[in-house]
Parts: sequence; structure tokens; C-alpha cells
Amino acid sequence: MRAFNFSAGPAALPEEVLQQAADEMLDWHGCGMGVMEMSHRGREFSSIHERALLDLRELLAVPASHQILFLQGGGLGANAIVPMNLLGSRSSADFVLTGAWTQKSYHEAKKYCSAHIAASGKTNAGFTRMPAVSEWQLCDDPAYVHVCSNETIDGVEMFEFPDLGNVPLVVDASSHILSRPMDVAKCGALFAGAQKNIGIAGLTIVIVREDLLDRSLAICPSAFEWKTIAANNSMYNTPPTYAIYVAGLVFQWLKRQGGLTAIEARNIEKATLLYDFIDGSDFYSSKVERGSRSRMNVPFFLADESRNDDFLAGANARGLLQLKGHRSVGGMRASIYNAVPLDGVKALVEYMKEFEQRRA
Amino acid sequence: MRAFNFSAGPAALPEEVLQQAADEMLDWHGCGMGVMEMSHRGREFSSIHERALLDLRELLAVPASHQILFLQGGGLGANAIVPMNLLGSRSSADFVLTGAWTQKSYHEAKKYCSAHIAASGKTNAGFTRMPAVSEWQLCDDPAYVHVCSNETIDGVEMFEFPDLGNVPLVVDASSHILSRPMDVAKCGALFAGAQKNIGIAGLTIVIVREDLLDRSLAICPSAFEWKTIAANNSMYNTPPTYAIYVAGLVFQWLKRQGGLTAIEARNIEKATLLYDFIDGSDFYSSKVERGSRSRMNVPFFLADESRNDDFLAGANARGLLQLKGHRSVGGMRASIYNAVPLDGVKALVEYMKEFEQRRA
Repeated sequence: MRAFNFSAGPAALPEEVLQQAADEMLDWHGCGMGVMEMSHRGREFSSIHERALLDLRELLAVPASHQILFLQGGGLGANAIVPMNLLGSRSSADFVLTGAWTQKSYHEAKKYCSAHIAASGKTNAGFTRMPAVSEWQLCDDPAYVHVCSNETIDGVEMFEFPDLGNVPLVVDASSHILSRPMDVAKCGALFAGAQKNIGIAGLTIVIVREDLLDRSLAICPSAFEWKTIAANNSMYNTPPTYAIYVAGLVFQWLKRQGGLTAIEARNIEKATLLYDFIDGSDFYSSKVERGSRSRMNVPFFLADESRNDDFLAGANARGLLQLKGHRSVGGMRASIYNAVPLDGVKALVEYMKEFEQRRA
Repeated sequence: MRAFNFSAGPAALPEEVLQQAADEMLDWHGCGMGVMEMSHRGREFSSIHERALLDLRELLAVPASHQILFLQGGGLGANAIVPMNLLGSRSSADFVLTGAWTQKSYHEAKKYCSAHIAASGKTNAGFTRMPAVSEWQLCDDPAYVHVCSNETIDGVEMFEFPDLGNVPLVVDASSHILSRPMDVAKCGALFAGAQKNIGIAGLTIVIVREDLLDRSLAICPSAFEWKTIAANNSMYNTPPTYAIYVAGLVFQWLKRQGGLTAIEARNIEKATLLYDFIDGSDFYSSKVERGSRSRMNVPFFLADESRNDDFLAGANARGLLQLKGHRSVGGMRASIYNAVPLDGVKALVEYMKEFEQRRA
């Protein structure tokens, strides 16, 4: 029986998508091969690849000025790949620190440039707020400004992208891409590991403005140089073909759900249900400021932390899986990505109510 | 209906493996989640990961001196990742040029060091032979010597690894790993993209001698730094979990086949059947010297190249797929990896006979 899966990533996928992948595993559309077995340059896989690109462009309304690239290496890989592709002749870049992910991005970038902290959302309670753009203090002539628009571990989300004029905005959108419409036109580059809201681990999607493709450093590996990948339509090296296929199935599923406006409405309903319950309870709490709360990753805490293990054991027994908080934050975390249905959040809230009453 | 698939990669997988992956897609071993949906740090995926590591170590007889790492980026990624990890304080590395893949490795390495050609297998007919070790002329104090032990495009294979004393041997074994026993102990590092004989594109296996883990350059991205990956048991960043799972299924399938000695015997039988037929024919030819012929990738040519398209169309109609040669070499190429059964090679030879007679 399928459980409700609150993993932060790799994470729940729509059951319809998994069923289709299983059905097509040995023979895709009668071609005699499974998708895993297709040459990436063959007619069959090309059609899968092109369809995925078109569907993603349509879903996210990616403007013609931006290219979509399929890479590997995940978010941590991108932390090095971004500066190697965007520094050009500049020697510094700005970072808005909002949690564990931007901290990692900042430290990795120091290998390649002078990394400057433009703003920080750190408070006494940890990373609990998204600093307003008015608080950002950029360094002199940064190559770009790096933000994480949804901090998976800390549960902090950015709901509007700022217009920075000539300075490219780089957005790590790994854990909330496709959860709602986003203004990609404001981004110099946006990247996302696939294993949260898109598909399976091992695929990194990069959306980059074409005029920024001439800024790579000489040390940038060809297999991770956006210019090279773009010139070869993501076929410079063998792309992660099966991960692209699964992403394409998710894109088609999203279109059947009504696209990003429809999925946003569902995600707001799910997040509101959970946060409202937490706010109305004395037993559970959220540390994140209301205007910065992620709709995808909801860290929360029990008033009595000695009951954490009991809470998790009871949840597991009910088929509510992977609710343990990240070790750096503690407590619990419910990741309620697109593929987690409203019924899953209802079941979680129901369990949280019962657990509170039983133990009170 | 399943066809016989001669793709050079991504390539045929054993039908049993695909069936098991399909069966377990929605719910792995009753845990309520599919493998794609599991946290890489959870108990379920950890068991898959550890089993894959143990099985690969057993199959390849990897000595205790060597670590097995699961990375991303494929062979072209490794062309940069290898020098960034192994140059240390040295400024040069040696390359044995044997085909398209070593040429790419050589050119990419020039970004990071002085790359030196120790030997070349190029003849008037292209890359048609594996230079003997006695022909290699190493530069002064190379950081390592890079070879490709099976050139996928040119069809040239190295059957013995040399002992280079203190100089680490780096082996790109992408397209024949697991096709037979290999003396991993002689390698400083061995790497292989998974999409030929292991599983799906997006996973790169690296086997590296532990004492070489302290030679990375400061510019090496953390997500591709072998020392960092080793220290974190390939969990520094989210690994390509589903690709590791499929690789694990293939490892288990190989063990059921009797391991690498048994699969080698089958591969010799398959390759002998095809090469003997080609050698006995006036219509088909191989350009590769007999002692250097790959058992995995068999490029061959029709005496009348104007019939190439007819040959391919007839093959497709019989369910003999992806036989077109690489554009840089031309002609045909039959990749007969582990998962291509003897019956597939028999069907190919039968078709080749008929095509020759029909058109003579």
C-alpha cells in the first residue's frame, strides 16, 4: 500500500507518473526498447527530450531570451558550476544568506571568487526570515547575486524575485520549482535539482539568459559549461536520459492538473491547513516568520521534544513517512511538494491532533 | 515485443532487471514508497546502496586498498574531474591515444595541466590498434597515465593493464566494465559511466586507490572531489539514487549469471561469432587489428557503402536496432554488451548473411 511520503527529497512522485513509468519500462510506445535503453541521439529519445523542454517552457513561461539546459551534479554541484560559468572577468559575487543551502553556496563560491554577504536572514532562532530586498547591500560590481528562493532545511521562501537591473540574479529554486508561477524573466540564471518537485535525483535543470553564456572561466569543465551544453542542446555528454523522461512525465501530469496556477492554489490550501493548525496549537510551533514561510517545507517543533521519537514512530505506523527534521535544525519537517495530496496533509494534521490529545 | 538492441549507450538492459524495476516501481519491498521517492539518507535506500557497493566489490574483486564512489557527470565529466583530483603538485599527465574518447580526455586535461601523448594507436585507417606498453614513452614525472581500456567508437580494447610502478594508471573502462574480470589492483583510478554495461545514464562509478585521495586541486568542485565523496560514502550531495538502484539490480543479475568469468565466456562466444563471420566474408570488413578488437563494440563496414541505408532499414524491420556507426567512423557498429544475448548476435549474423546474398 502506498504511504504518504513527506521526504524533503528525493521525494514523493505522483502515482500516475510511477504507474506510467512502470507500464512503459520494457517497451516504450511499441518501439521494442525501454527508455533506459535508448541512445540519447536516437529518434525516440529525441522526441522525449524535445517534449520535456517544450512542456517545461510552457509551464514556467520561460521567455525566449532564456535557454533550458539539462545537467547533472545537483545543487551542490551547481554551487561550483555557477561561479565557474558566471564570473567572467569579475572577481566577486553576492550572497543572500537564508539558510543551510545559501551558506553552502557561499562557502563553495569562495574557491573561485571573493564572496560577499549582501544580507542574512539569521536571527537568534536560526534562519527564520527572508531579508527584504531593501536590506540587501551589494558589493562593488558583483558578477551576480545568489539567492535560494526556498530553503529546504530551514523552511524559508522568497515569493517575489527582485529586479536588480544589470546585475544578474541567480536563483536556486530546487525545492519549490513548479510549485507556482515564477518570474523567470527576472533571473539571469535559475537552477533546480530535480529530486524534490520534478522527478528523480541526478538531473539538474538550469535556465539561463542567453547573453550570460559567454562568461565561463577557463577552468570550467566542458561537461558543466553552460555555453557548451547550450550549443549542443544538452547532448554534449550523455544526459541523464531516464531522469529527463520522468521529469517529462511529471510536466505532463502538471499540465493535466491545470498548470502552475492550479497547483499553486492546491499548495496554498495544503500549506494553510498545516500552518493554521500549528499556529492554533500550544503543542506544536513554527519558528519561521509568517511572511517567509515555505509552502513546500514545513519545519515544526513539539513543545516537549522528549516525545519526538514517539511522534515519529506513531506517524510511521500510520503510513506518514519521513517526517524527521534535518539534523541541523531538529524537530520535525513535513515536505508537502506537488505530489503530496491534500489528503496527506489532512491525515498528518489529524495525527498531530490525536498525538497532542493522547499525550496531554 | 522486445527487439535486439545494439545501441552503444545508453544500451540494452537485461529484461529481468527491467521487469523487477517495473514491479517495484510503486512500492519497494512493501515500504509504501518507490525507490525514486526515498530519501537517500533513509534506512531503505541505505540498504540498496550498501548492497550495490558490496556486490560490485565482489564482482570486480576490488581490493581493500581501493574505494568505490558513485558520482555524476559521465565520461566527459570525468575528463575534467580526473585531473582536478589527481594532479596534486605535478604539472603534467600522460595520455595513450587510442580513439575518440582518449582524444577528448587529452584535450580536456590541457585545461589543467601539460598533457603529453605517450603513444598513439592511430594508423592510416584511423584508430585501429592498441599500442603495446613497450611503445609508451612517458614524460618526466607525470601525475598519472590515462588510458581508455575500451574505445566505444573505434572498437579497440586493452586486455591487460600494465604495471607502471609508482605512476598511477587511470583507466576509462566505461564501455567494457563488468564484461570480464579486470585487474583493478593495477589501477590508481578506474572510472565508468553506467549507461553501457551497468545501467542508466547519469551515474559514474569511480574506483580509486585510497592513497591518491589527497591530490585534489583547490579549484576542484566539492561535489566532484573524490576525497569529499569518499569521506561521505557518496552521500556528500544527493547521489543519483535510482541509477544506483538499477546498477544494483544489474549486479545481482550478473551474480546470477555466474559472475564475470561466466559472462566473459559468453561475451567471447558472441564476439567470436560476429568477428569470424565478418572475417569470412568479402562483403563485410573490420578495420581493427585482431589483437585489439573490442568484444563489446564491433564497428564494421559494407563493401558497398551506398547500401548502408538499405542495410539499416532492413535491420530495423527485423527488430535489430541502433546499428548505425558513429558519425566520426561511419559504417555500422554492433555494441554487444552483457545484456545483448547470444541469440541477438545470431540474428544479426543471419541477417548480414541474407543481406549479402540478396544484394550480391
